[in-house]
Amino acid sequence: MEIYDFGMVGLGVMGRNLLLNMADNNFAVSGLDIDQEKADFLEKDAKSGQQVKGTISPKEFIESLKKPRALMLLVPAGKPVDAAIQNLLPFLQEDDIVIDGGNSHFTDTNRRVAELNEKGIHFFGMGISGGEKGARFGPSMMPGGDKEAYERLRPIFEAISAKVNNEPCVTYMGTGSAGHYVKMVHNGIEYAIMQLISEVYDLLKRGLNYSDVDLQKTFEEWNQGELQSYLLEITGEVLSKFDDKTGIRLVNLISDRAMAKGTGKWTSQNAMDLQSPIPVIDAAVTMRDLSTYKDERVRASVALQWNLSEEESSVYDPGLIDEIKEAYHFAMITVYAQGMAQLHKASREYNYGLNPENVTRIWRGGCIIRALCLEDFRQAFNRDRELPNLMLDEQISKTLISKQMAIRSTIKLAVDKGIPVAAFMTSLAYFDAYRSATLPTNLIQAQRDYFGAHLYERIDQEGTFHTHWDQQ
Amino acid sequence: MEIYDFGMVGLGVMGRNLLLNMADNNFAVSGLDIDQEKADFLEKDAKSGQQVKGTISPKEFIESLKKPRALMLLVPAGKPVDAAIQNLLPFLQEDDIVIDGGNSHFTDTNRRVAELNEKGIHFFGMGISGGEKGARFGPSMMPGGDKEAYERLRPIFEAISAKVNNEPCVTYMGTGSAGHYVKMVHNGIEYAIMQLISEVYDLLKRGLNYSDVDLQKTFEEWNQGELQSYLLEITGEVLSKFDDKTGIRLVNLISDRAMAKGTGKWTSQNAMDLQSPIPVIDAAVTMRDLSTYKDERVRASVALQWNLSEEESSVYDPGLIDEIKEAYHFAMITVYAQGMAQLHKASREYNYGLNPENVTRIWRGGCIIRALCLEDFRQAFNRDRELPNLMLDEQISKTLISKQMAIRSTIKLAVDKGIPVAAFMTSLAYFDAYRSATLPTNLIQAQRDYFGAHLYERIDQEGTFHTHWDQQ
Repeated sequence: MEIYDFGMVGLGVMGRNLLLNMADNNFAVSGLDIDQEKADFLEKDAKSGQQVKGTISPKEFIESLKKPRALMLLVPAGKPVDAAIQNLLPFLQEDDIVIDGGNSHFTDTNRRVAELNEKGIHFFGMGISGGEKGARFGPSMMPGGDKEAYERLRPIFEAISAKVNNEPCVTYMGTGSAGHYVKMVHNGIEYAIMQLISEVYDLLKRGLNYSDVDLQKTFEEWNQGELQSYLLEITGEVLSKFDDKTGIRLVNLISDRAMAKGTGKWTSQNAMDLQSPIPVIDAAVTMRDLSTYKDERVRASVALQWNLSEEESSVYDPGLIDEIKEAYHFAMITVYAQGMAQLHKASREYNYGLNPENVTRIWRGGCIIRALCLEDFRQAFNRDRELPNLMLDEQISKTLISKQMAIRSTIKLAVDKGIPVAAFMTSLAYFDAYRSATLPTNLIQAQRDYFGAHLYERIDQEGTFHTHWDQQ
Repeated sequence: MEIYDFGMVGLGVMGRNLLLNMADNNFAVSGLDIDQEKADFLEKDAKSGQQVKGTISPKEFIESLKKPRALMLLVPAGKPVDAAIQNLLPFLQEDDIVIDGGNSHFTDTNRRVAELNEKGIHFFGMGISGGEKGARFGPSMMPGGDKEAYERLRPIFEAISAKVNNEPCVTYMGTGSAGHYVKMVHNGIEYAIMQLISEVYDLLKRGLNYSDVDLQKTFEEWNQGELQSYLLEITGEVLSKFDDKTGIRLVNLISDRAMAKGTGKWTSQNAMDLQSPIPVIDAAVTMRDLSTYKDERVRASVALQWNLSEEESSVYDPGLIDEIKEAYHFAMITVYAQGMAQLHKASREYNYGLNPENVTRIWRGGCIIRALCLEDFRQAFNRDRELPNLMLDEQISKTLISKQMAIRSTIKLAVDKGIPVAAFMTSLAYFDAYRSATLPTNLIQAQRDYFGAHLYERIDQEGTFHTHWDQQ
């Protein structure tokens, strides 16, 4: 006993794959699940010579681990995490390390850090991205909280992580719930990029009558150059997959009711608390929600029917696709800019001490939002660690300026075709508002003072003022 | 003693004005504040013969009220409400009625209903809209919770409320926190309409070089016809106001950093919890937040400079204004549609038992979002109480269809001019997505299953499915 380097609680696909990844890197690992089948399955998947153990007994599991122990929870966010901690606590000793590797809400993580520290247990939250495959062959990991505890386990995590230019896609993010916070924003960005891709797909398919073959080719081509990214890559693969039974492309048989686990929603809700604008992520969350109203949409497709004339709907200029590609590039940059600006604000608000260059560095590989452009963003933050918004960087701003006419054309095309492109639209609105030294919100301030005596500030004097607007 | 019909805790402008309104309607009223000046001020404002009393003594205040007592709290939302309740509790008796007339978060109201019911005290939350003037001469009021308690006070509230066609703008909304919830959504709609007006202002001023005189005239004219509304009315008045000292139009001296008290944010955050899409309200919240980044915007106005050619920026077609007006009409309808759809969903989720016709009826007068079109909405809900979305109504849908080309043109104009119109854009995206029987979110479901094994549903079979997408 006491021979295993690392323990995992929860042997779902992510937990199992992380352990097998560790085993491949010569660590001895032990896993706990309530399901005997999952415990057995773990052992069966191990290669000969690897030290991999699965069990359903918490006591056996705990006793199998080297002291001070290191174990990770990979169970659904919320109450299951607290339940798992409570079940294990009686067996744990001072100086043991517990890691929450799930998508916990960052406020829960703050609470758990405090609760476990009181008991002398080291606890830290770690966002893990990369899906099944990432977990198995190299994820991106975002640890935050107890730095000393992370340092003890750093060799394991650096070994199993994805690498880009030999640099591991894991590094300490910051204090408290920093790791889970960064992962939350990662997921918000993920929602927004997926929404953008779906809008391109819609615009090409419904708006420009692209065939399935052309759709597949388009995304495959886009993934070759500077737009290269995991999400474009899998889009090409998704579009190339045929249903075994019917021989129809599988994507065409999938329901358009989009599901969500809530991390995108959390990103938007917290951004509103921080007053950090992330309108493209908001739009992505909202459009997934809207997709669930299938019955109403079917009714509305009749009540609000609008048929484009034959002529309008059949004409398409092959040059348009290059503009749409540039528009996608533009919008994608604004999405990362919004996410990184939220992290900038959150780091100040919650004293995380985030280094934005580290965040963009570990996102270059392993995670769902990995993309070639992350290296550009890393360099921007290398030039200025205090950059409040990527759009202010000298290089990034040039790229945006060079592509702004393309996103304008693309939106106008979608508007004419009746294709909803909320993510593209909010991307441009964000850009145009951000580059406005003066916004029309002075009128809103005046209205608020008119009806609610909420006071206003002036541009020519210090202080706050109230006017009796209806007395001339 | 025990001669006053109604007591008010908090003699700020809203509390004082509501009491004076009651006094005008021959009720005897008593007010409590911690500030002697405010207590005195109340009495000074009363007309001779009216029974109006102000005090700083909780004991004296409570003893002055007829039993069973009826008193309202008008203090800032959050802890002050709980503090006020705690301070009064020792003096209260079973069957007394306490009303929270502030903008409390609906979850706090649910908690307080339970806490006070336990003590035999009747408690209900009531949203009040109309600002200072509404409170003084006729607000719109949204009571919810303890119906019996509301019925006891109904004569007072019906007397002081605004009237439309002799119908009072107050009625029982529903159980629990229904009143505060309806008021929250009212405020979300208010944010969105104000954002739309500010976008029109920006488009005309920066985009089409409208003079201040023409801006004022435009909003005054719009308020004459079917668009008549309180917010358009005060916009005209705001734009007509000159600064006493400088002789400049005051609006031009007001800072463009927009403030917010949070009710719009709550509306968006809760809509995301309910999965009820309200993208125009989200955009309004976000754009206010973005306005606060003044220093960054000034930097970005240089870094992301884009000068339209002289020619492009100086030409404008006088016919455009009619299209922009129709676009505003279109977008305004979608804002109310989003808010009412959120109420529809919330009523089911929280068992409020809301009657949407009642909501639109009491919003026709007294409140900030009162507008002629509320009567159209009331009629739509009269035709179908279960209507999940106003856009499905036969009359409303016709109006939208007739104006859709105008909002498309308006957005294209703004896109060409570089004017941010997030509210107009999200309005159209919402419309175009809602009337899409099929959305491209099937692709998102496929991607989620690809990287996270999140499963998907099919259109040709029941159940959930998982595919190994990368195995051909």
